[in-house]
Amino acid sequence: MKAANFDGQKIILDENYPDPISDETLVRVDLAGICGTDLEILNGYMRYQGILGHEFVGTVEKSENPGLIGKRVVGEINVGCGVCDYCVKGIERHCSHRTVLGILKRNGAFAEFLSLPAKNLHIIPDSITDEQAVFVEPLAAAFEIKEQLKLEPQWNVAVVGDGRLAHLIIRVIKLTCPNIVCFGRHKNKLASLEKLKIKTKVGINSFDEQSFDLVVEATGSNSGFVDTMKLVRPRGTVILKSTIASRENLDLTPTVVNEITLIGSRCGSFKPAIDSLATGIITVDDMVDSTYPLEKFYEAIEHAKKPDTLKVFLKPLLKK
Amino acid sequence: MKAANFDGQKIILDENYPDPISDETLVRVDLAGICGTDLEILNGYMRYQGILGHEFVGTVEKSENPGLIGKRVVGEINVGCGVCDYCVKGIERHCSHRTVLGILKRNGAFAEFLSLPAKNLHIIPDSITDEQAVFVEPLAAAFEIKEQLKLEPQWNVAVVGDGRLAHLIIRVIKLTCPNIVCFGRHKNKLASLEKLKIKTKVGINSFDEQSFDLVVEATGSNSGFVDTMKLVRPRGTVILKSTIASRENLDLTPTVVNEITLIGSRCGSFKPAIDSLATGIITVDDMVDSTYPLEKFYEAIEHAKKPDTLKVFLKPLLKK
Repeated sequence: MKAANFDGQKIILDENYPDPISDETLVRVDLAGICGTDLEILNGYMRYQGILGHEFVGTVEKSENPGLIGKRVVGEINVGCGVCDYCVKGIERHCSHRTVLGILKRNGAFAEFLSLPAKNLHIIPDSITDEQAVFVEPLAAAFEIKEQLKLEPQWNVAVVGDGRLAHLIIRVIKLTCPNIVCFGRHKNKLASLEKLKIKTKVGINSFDEQSFDLVVEATGSNSGFVDTMKLVRPRGTVILKSTIASRENLDLTPTVVNEITLIGSRCGSFKPAIDSLATGIITVDDMVDSTYPLEKFYEAIEHAKKPDTLKVFLKPLLKK
Repeated sequence: MKAANFDGQKIILDENYPDPISDETLVRVDLAGICGTDLEILNGYMRYQGILGHEFVGTVEKSENPGLIGKRVVGEINVGCGVCDYCVKGIERHCSHRTVLGILKRNGAFAEFLSLPAKNLHIIPDSITDEQAVFVEPLAAAFEIKEQLKLEPQWNVAVVGDGRLAHLIIRVIKLTCPNIVCFGRHKNKLASLEKLKIKTKVGINSFDEQSFDLVVEATGSNSGFVDTMKLVRPRGTVILKSTIASRENLDLTPTVVNEITLIGSRCGSFKPAIDSLATGIITVDDMVDSTYPLEKFYEAIEHAKKPDTLKVFLKPLLKK
């Protein structure tokens, strides 16, 4: 099969990559999304080598579960050992022996086929388009915030960052908290949020400092942490969403002095994300930027790297 | 009056420092304690200049509250503006205009006299000795953890650090959680904990990694954060207690990937600390190291800096 394979140094299109062979369910990838984490992996994050990509929608070709065959699916990306305390509680994403699609010891979605355990797959209703379905994985990561923290409607909320994940987080938080400000840098991305009636700002003024009950750090860079700590009020809460390859000088003393709670937040359950797209309470169509054939993965990645780009897709363009 | 004054570079004994003049309550200092924060201030923390010291017990000389005069008192160290949201809620320690005894824009306790608002003072029952009373302030900081977080008795708890604050934190957590391990470095300090039947360890083995539900970082140094993140389990909780002058390369990515909750924790209410000493559910006598006259502040501070020292006191030795 065709696959965009990363050898730890560079990513190349392999026309004859071996098809997945396993007891898992075989999925033909219909469409995949490029995420900030993919770009961080290319910078060395997780020291991953293999086929990239963890956001996808596909069609089941082969499965031990006959109800899945021929169905359009999305897939939870963490695969646990199945026996540890975390797996038994259903949170495979914290299993210490887990593999993660396109991120950790498991080939990903920038390919014609991928495999995952049947229980990781969710059938997508016909009302959800392929492009929308690719958003389920990052949207689930946004919904994770609501599982970790009881949002209060009267809170002043700041989201630091205006990237793809920040856009989804804002949509999710807005379901509960109407008072949200996005602190961003990129005209196009901020304009897109303003169309959703989200208040946006470039730069922090003294009036904003220590004035937010909840601040979500979703810049994908270390610099976002400094801004985040400026914005959060004493005894306020910070959600940390950025997973980054680099590390910098971070000063945790203000966290202690101002008694801030920092909550790390990663992947979430798919069900609320699928439901929100199916019912239309969350819309993502305005986040679609462009679609490239898998063969043009290099141009697609370069496009996704541009600071003012929202979601870029890769399409394996299989002959059926 | 005599006072140990820090000019931002060095600390000197001023024999003729002006007595406090204010509308606040005037307290004659009977005994003061040297804390890790004092040592950090000498390294540049808070850029503080003035009389050091924030742990004390004293006798009220003059007050607008006649019930306080002649009484033995300890004092909450934060003084707020009195009108902001935090002050109105009774948490002056988060007022953005606050002063803090011996730490921020307010002369401290390494002197013959200090002043504080009457409402900051708590009368100490006769059953509590002067040495015990000096522990009220840091013990309140340890009790703050119980106000921020509901401790569960079945938790495995690690305390990283074996210093003065770590010792008090261990005593407080042990009231709820019997399974505590202290990860320390100093023989004398660890031996003192073992006498309280606390399990102690030097160094982290692979069996300890990611095995603790709650980890308290109380080393007073940046290196403690790395050990803390090794010990906490996925989705576990970390209490951050160290306020330090330096900053280092800290990697927050494991916080995100493992969805850790980090809670900054500083000062606490005095009441539970006083009650615990009065009833004897917390004992601190084994933490008393030595007492120096105020004139020997230099020797006292050098002694307190030694890695295996517990609590060192300064006594103004007033002629009454």
